Amino acid sequence: MIDLRSDTVTKPDDTMRRLMAEAIVGDDVYEEDPTVNELERYAAELLGKEAALFTTSGTQGNQAAVLTHTRPGQEIVMDNEAHVYIYEGAAISAFAGVQPRVLPHEAGVVDLDAMEAAIRPEDVHYPETGLIWLENTHNRGGGSVLPFSYLTGVRALADEYGIPVHMDGARLFNAAEATGRQPAAIAAFADSVQFCLSKGLGAPVGSMLAGTKEFIQTARKKRKMLGGGLRQAGVIAAPGLYALQERRGRLKEDHDHAKRLAHVIMNDTDLTIRHDVETNIIVADTDTSSRSAAEWVKALHEEGAAVIQYKPEAVRFTTNADVSPDDIDTVVSILQKLGADR
Amino acid sequence: MIDLRSDTVTKPDDTMRRLMAEAIVGDDVYEEDPTVNELERYAAELLGKEAALFTTSGTQGNQAAVLTHTRPGQEIVMDNEAHVYIYEGAAISAFAGVQPRVLPHEAGVVDLDAMEAAIRPEDVHYPETGLIWLENTHNRGGGSVLPFSYLTGVRALADEYGIPVHMDGARLFNAAEATGRQPAAIAAFADSVQFCLSKGLGAPVGSMLAGTKEFIQTARKKRKMLGGGLRQAGVIAAPGLYALQERRGRLKEDHDHAKRLAHVIMNDTDLTIRHDVETNIIVADTDTSSRSAAEWVKALHEEGAAVIQYKPEAVRFTTNADVSPDDIDTVVSILQKLGADR
Amino acid sequence: MIDLRSDTVTKPDDTMRRLMAEAIVGDDVYEEDPTVNELERYAAELLGKEAALFTTSGTQGNQAAVLTHTRPGQEIVMDNEAHVYIYEGAAISAFAGVQPRVLPHEAGVVDLDAMEAAIRPEDVHYPETGLIWLENTHNRGGGSVLPFSYLTGVRALADEYGIPVHMDGARLFNAAEATGRQPAAIAAFADSVQFCLSKGLGAPVGSMLAGTKEFIQTARKKRKMLGGGLRQAGVIAAPGLYALQERRGRLKEDHDHAKRLAHVIMNDTDLTIRHDVETNIIVADTDTSSRSAAEWVKALHEEGAAVIQYKPEAVRFTTNADVSPDDIDTVVSILQKLGADR
Amino acid sequence: MIDLRSDTVTKPDDTMRRLMAEAIVGDDVYEEDPTVNELERYAAELLGKEAALFTTSGTQGNQAAVLTHTRPGQEIVMDNEAHVYIYEGAAISAFAGVQPRVLPHEAGVVDLDAMEAAIRPEDVHYPETGLIWLENTHNRGGGSVLPFSYLTGVRALADEYGIPVHMDGARLFNAAEATGRQPAAIAAFADSVQFCLSKGLGAPVGSMLAGTKEFIQTARKKRKMLGGGLRQAGVIAAPGLYALQERRGRLKEDHDHAKRLAHVIMNDTDLTIRHDVETNIIVADTDTSSRSAAEWVKALHEEGAAVIQYKPEAVRFTTNADVSPDDIDTVVSILQKLGADR
Repeated sequence: MIDLRSDTVTKPDDTMRRLMAEAIVGDDVYEEDPTVNELERYAAELLGKEAALFTTSGTQGNQAAVLTHTRPGQEIVMDNEAHVYIYEGAAISAFAGVQPRVLPHEAGVVDLDAMEAAIRPEDVHYPETGLIWLENTHNRGGGSVLPFSYLTGVRALADEYGIPVHMDGARLFNAAEATGRQPAAIAAFADSVQFCLSKGLGAPVGSMLAGTKEFIQTARKKRKMLGGGLRQAGVIAAPGLYALQERRGRLKEDHDHAKRLAHVIMNDTDLTIRHDVETNIIVADTDTSSRSAAEWVKALHEEGAAVIQYKPEAVRFTTNADVSPDDIDTVVSILQKLGADR
Repeated sequence: MIDLRSDTVTKPDDTMRRLMAEAIVGDDVYEEDPTVNELERYAAELLGKEAALFTTSGTQGNQAAVLTHTRPGQEIVMDNEAHVYIYEGAAISAFAGVQPRVLPHEAGVVDLDAMEAAIRPEDVHYPETGLIWLENTHNRGGGSVLPFSYLTGVRALADEYGIPVHMDGARLFNAAEATGRQPAAIAAFADSVQFCLSKGLGAPVGSMLAGTKEFIQTARKKRKMLGGGLRQAGVIAAPGLYALQERRGRLKEDHDHAKRLAHVIMNDTDLTIRHDVETNIIVADTDTSSRSAAEWVKALHEEGAAVIQYKPEAVRFTTNADVSPDDIDTVVSILQKLGADR
Repeated sequence: MIDLRSDTVTKPDDTMRRLMAEAIVGDDVYEEDPTVNELERYAAELLGKEAALFTTSGTQGNQAAVLTHTRPGQEIVMDNEAHVYIYEGAAISAFAGVQPRVLPHEAGVVDLDAMEAAIRPEDVHYPETGLIWLENTHNRGGGSVLPFSYLTGVRALADEYGIPVHMDGARLFNAAEATGRQPAAIAAFADSVQFCLSKGLGAPVGSMLAGTKEFIQTARKKRKMLGGGLRQAGVIAAPGLYALQERRGRLKEDHDHAKRLAHVIMNDTDLTIRHDVETNIIVADTDTSSRSAAEWVKALHEEGAAVIQYKPEAVRFTTNADVSPDDIDTVVSILQKLGADR
Repeated sequence: MIDLRSDTVTKPDDTMRRLMAEAIVGDDVYEEDPTVNELERYAAELLGKEAALFTTSGTQGNQAAVLTHTRPGQEIVMDNEAHVYIYEGAAISAFAGVQPRVLPHEAGVVDLDAMEAAIRPEDVHYPETGLIWLENTHNRGGGSVLPFSYLTGVRALADEYGIPVHMDGARLFNAAEATGRQPAAIAAFADSVQFCLSKGLGAPVGSMLAGTKEFIQTARKKRKMLGGGLRQAGVIAAPGLYALQERRGRLKEDHDHAKRLAHVIMNDTDLTIRHDVETNIIVADTDTSSRSAAEWVKALHEEGAAVIQYKPEAVRFTTNADVSPDDIDTVVSILQKLGADR
């Protein structure tokens, strides 16, 4: 089975496995794990932030950020399909007591006037606006990259109103690869940034949260409350550090694969891709197809390719490190066969 | 000053004041206040519910309902301008830990297919959908009445998915008056209903929450936690009971007044009313006007009429018990003067 | 029935009823109710604080204080029988997300060394200590008054560690009466103070929260979230203001009554009072009696006096404004009869 | 340095490292990691429960349990030095909104009459009692084992009142080793049990939560919200499974070491051990010593042994897998030297 369900499914390679076995470790609750410490130092430097924190998932990094930036009764302004709104079990409300103030978006981009109008003035009836949220690349937007002009505009708004910005950069390096910009140049627009080691970079477990020293110090306590204080965490930090240092370059391959698949989908099937494929995610709408989304998932599965139904009328393909050029050839054939066979 | 800012500003009349002074009271925390007990019994009967609870505000009634229906990590499906989302300090997230799942609306009506799509299937990433929210009449929708077809559709959806429905009926009796239906016939679509004694009915303080006996028993405890357990509450329940029994009929006058003002606004000013005025609220958009919303508020104020800026480009007029037919004549003149003077 | 269950059961007298009927009112959500404004001004002045806020109950005042002083993940250091710990539905944890750190007490007084040891140093495992809690007089301590030496000690500790102090002064004026000190002299030890209008002072509804201007401004928003934003609240503020201005002096009578009853209980029954009766509450232990607590409640009730079972082996008598000297004579006779009849 | 600070500091051995490198993995968020699945199956069987869940820490296991068993506004009855009360950042209040109802204890054992008295009857003022908490072995009790008679009594109480029981069995296998009982025989008294792979068993990371199938299904969602949904978690589950299968037997050595140290401490120093040392933890009180707790930590450190200051007047020694018999010889010598040198 060629697994295109997500870039989270990739398995650690031999190098990563060797690094786990050889990792120098300590008790990270006491901040004594040298490998974790090095990973946190490296991640902070790479993003141009003062400090970073290892978390066991992107969700944990996001939640620690929310718990650190906000207080109950505040609002987070975000797009209405943000991962944190759709896929994190309402934890921002359940644990942090904050209300998502959501706005329509196009490929992750919210209209800046609408965003400004959503920032609350002082009034006894109103929550305070405690945080602005960005997701880059944007998952439900089809792996779309937030434009620099948008990042600039959001930052200007945030500065004007004195509101911090968090970037859910689970796939930040895909954005960097697609735009040719440095990760730090993108991270600079946000006060805090989360990115994943376990998606396109291929590490088995983990994400990083970066920000100021003071921010990370508080987030460390929030992580402990979330149960993310690990002991000899170096065993998973080691492959994470390697992934971060050595495997950012490989994302280009995923992007090329995605573009190739997108081309075939658009030309040889009755699926429709409504946003240009910029990175490693393809959201293909089925409303133009003779097959429903569920039928596409089933048909592809029978032919040997796993994808996920993403919305009532869409399927998602995600290229990743475990999908080889040959695999892509195979998926192209499958798509052409299914496309012909309507 | 003719106060059209809200129907909350009405002052108790002489009858109400007398009733306060004469109220038979007891300690309502011990459920020994006869006047409160009678008000709760009467309200339940009027709405066709098993039981009802006196709360000190519509917000408290809504919050007690959310705390009773839901648990943290659930979602409430609602329109994206619901009072509970915009005006209650994010309390549903801060206190109840639930996430609002908001959808676009037209006059309080959400597309039923969109509502169904927003109900979550079981998945480890997803919140559960714990409640569906209705607001009737709909404040930001311009005092709009939820159509019977919509109530029927929402109820069917709720039943199919086994999700309770709460109706924020702060202005439920305006909906009843406008449609000629019995309050119980409207309340029948919801598992719990909140309505206000202190808006069009003119009581100085208070709202009611109605539902099953078991629901109200739990809500009573939540009210205590919110600090809404009062002692000799009969002193405010007495005018509330009177308002509920004797003053529902007077809402027709508010509606007539609002329609008269709406006619003048549309014909004699450059303001635009985009939803038919059905009850006692007029939302007049200023995007077609030479005056901004703030300028309209100021100009009207200088002429002796108080309204509120409601959105960046809208002002709201709310007719109420303290605005007499003569006052309406005056406001008509003011509007015509300002309309001529652009 | 002579009602000694609580001082909350008192009914408004004719003056209060007249004041309600005559109250000048406005919409207090807009801070336009002159009577509420005057009550808040007067209460602040009386307590020597910058500002005060009307709340519908002591619970609401306490909860608004906690929501304002603390953030989730903090601890409040308090005695292990504080009203807020035993009688407020765990709202400090449910709504404010704070953990009570409770310590043994004697008549409301916690050992200061134990209190200091409970203040948390910085550590990734630890909550922060966000607030120190005092209850004065202390309900479960038998209406006991916190000694000045204790207040001084707690304040010194709080200052040393930079932690605010809240005083649940539901019966603050009983403490003032018993010690002959000014309310402001007692309130001076706390950053915020809550007191009740509806207990010994006899108003039908309401409590006050006092503190700095900034504190009260935030607490006002928290009160709104709790549903405590009332409209024409002047109708209940009016008797509250009268009670506060005119009825503090009458507490001496309650104290005298309580002492008289205590004398009879100790001399003529097999009940035991383990703390000197200082104010209007008598906690009488039944472990020395041939009757259980439940049997005492029943026997007294049959003779015409209502008290409450307070702990598994105690009953509580609370003198109050609706219990006359003649009533006390009657209760004395009842106690003597029941005491003889073992 | 001989590290006796905790049993969390142990480093993975060569076998564990090899198992990590060779682990068969999948995406555990999709429940497709065979190694995690096997660990969960094995742990459930070992504890005699229907199902189990891998968590990244004992704190995460405890929090997921609380989030699953309780709802906001409930209380958990527990001893007043439980790990969850002292060391988990008040997360039970911050995230789950529950209030700890704490009681004095002796070596982890609460008086059963006091426990029963703490269970709340129904009353509008009261929280509901949602959970009873046990910690076995008890950390602050000095690694004490909860007696079978106590477990029986608590279970009987829980059954009578219909309240679930959670056991924080971070060191459950120490209790099993010390009593010679099967883990399942101890776990049988609780509805849910958490135990750690990373303490005496020596795995680098992780804990397990066990209970009914339905309980674990809900806990899985709570774990996701806490950020504990990992991807290729098999890489840390593999050494955990090995530790659980092969290393329970080694705890006897830790216990023998602790008893040997305790003997020396009692005979050759002026420290006092007030509870018999039953497992791998020694809490030595310094109130009888010429050195303060801080001075003991420093003196031991200078001699090459790391311990932690545990309370204002106590130090804790914890034997563990990385402390060899030779190391114990060394620590004995150090203690004798420091004991002589007062």
